[in-house]
Amino acid sequence: MVEVELSRIIIDEKSHDQVIVLREKNGPRQIPIMIGSVEASSIQMRISGVESPRPLTHDLLVLLVKGLGAEAECVLIDDFVEGTYFAKIRLKKESGEVVLVDARPSDAVSLSVRMKLPIYVEEDVFHKTVAGDNA
Amino acid sequence: MVEVELSRIIIDEKSHDQVIVLREKNGPRQIPIMIGSVEASSIQMRISGVESPRPLTHDLLVLLVKGLGAEAECVLIDDFVEGTYFAKIRLKKESGEVVLVDARPSDAVSLSVRMKLPIYVEEDVFHKTVAGDNA
Repeated sequence: MVEVELSRIIIDEKSHDQVIVLREKNGPRQIPIMIGSVEASSIQMRISGVESPRPLTHDLLVLLVKGLGAEAECVLIDDFVEGTYFAKIRLKKESGEVVLVDARPSDAVSLSVRMKLPIYVEEDVFHKTVAGDNA
Repeated sequence: MVEVELSRIIIDEKSHDQVIVLREKNGPRQIPIMIGSVEASSIQMRISGVESPRPLTHDLLVLLVKGLGAEAECVLIDDFVEGTYFAKIRLKKESGEVVLVDARPSDAVSLSVRMKLPIYVEEDVFHKTVAGDNA
């Protein structure tokens, strides 16, 4: 697993899809992920420090995790299949049990900026992406 | 508390805001709630039986609740202040403890259609809304 950080959000007002770029913390590799505009603006808002008067859907994810006494530990980008990235959110239940919840990278990254969670990418995903780019 | 059900979703493609109408189960009163277009289409998709290949943000809410071993019990629309409805999601933790999580009605209703949760409206909210309409 390679730790990455959100390095850029590229928002194009005219497009439905936006791009977030995850960059390796200790290296040069980058992963651009296309996400929806709502998810992009939800990430952007949080990074800019803009507070919504009422909880956005991603804020509700945080409220749910906390309300249920769980702890979100990290986000994993663990697969890339036919142009789609797959992610998981790793959580520790109140009982101590660790669970992985399937998510789109956009939702997972939005949760990570809200809860300051590290983001890890499976080494294999970098290779698959590069292979995809060269295809 | 008065039980209501989602009776209509009014989607206007040209508008940013859409409307859902909650109707009293055993009576004629209705509550129209303005919600965002993404939340409206997320509700609409689920009602139409359209499955997203990857979990939408509201599907992730469901996965989180289940993954954390909790049980969502119902949705409460419990206040109306200055034109804004307030909602709560009532959940039972694995330990049996009941928790209320603050949410926008759009997210709460979207969760309710996915998890088949009853929706209740505080009697007081009907009065506040009617008062608002007459103002």
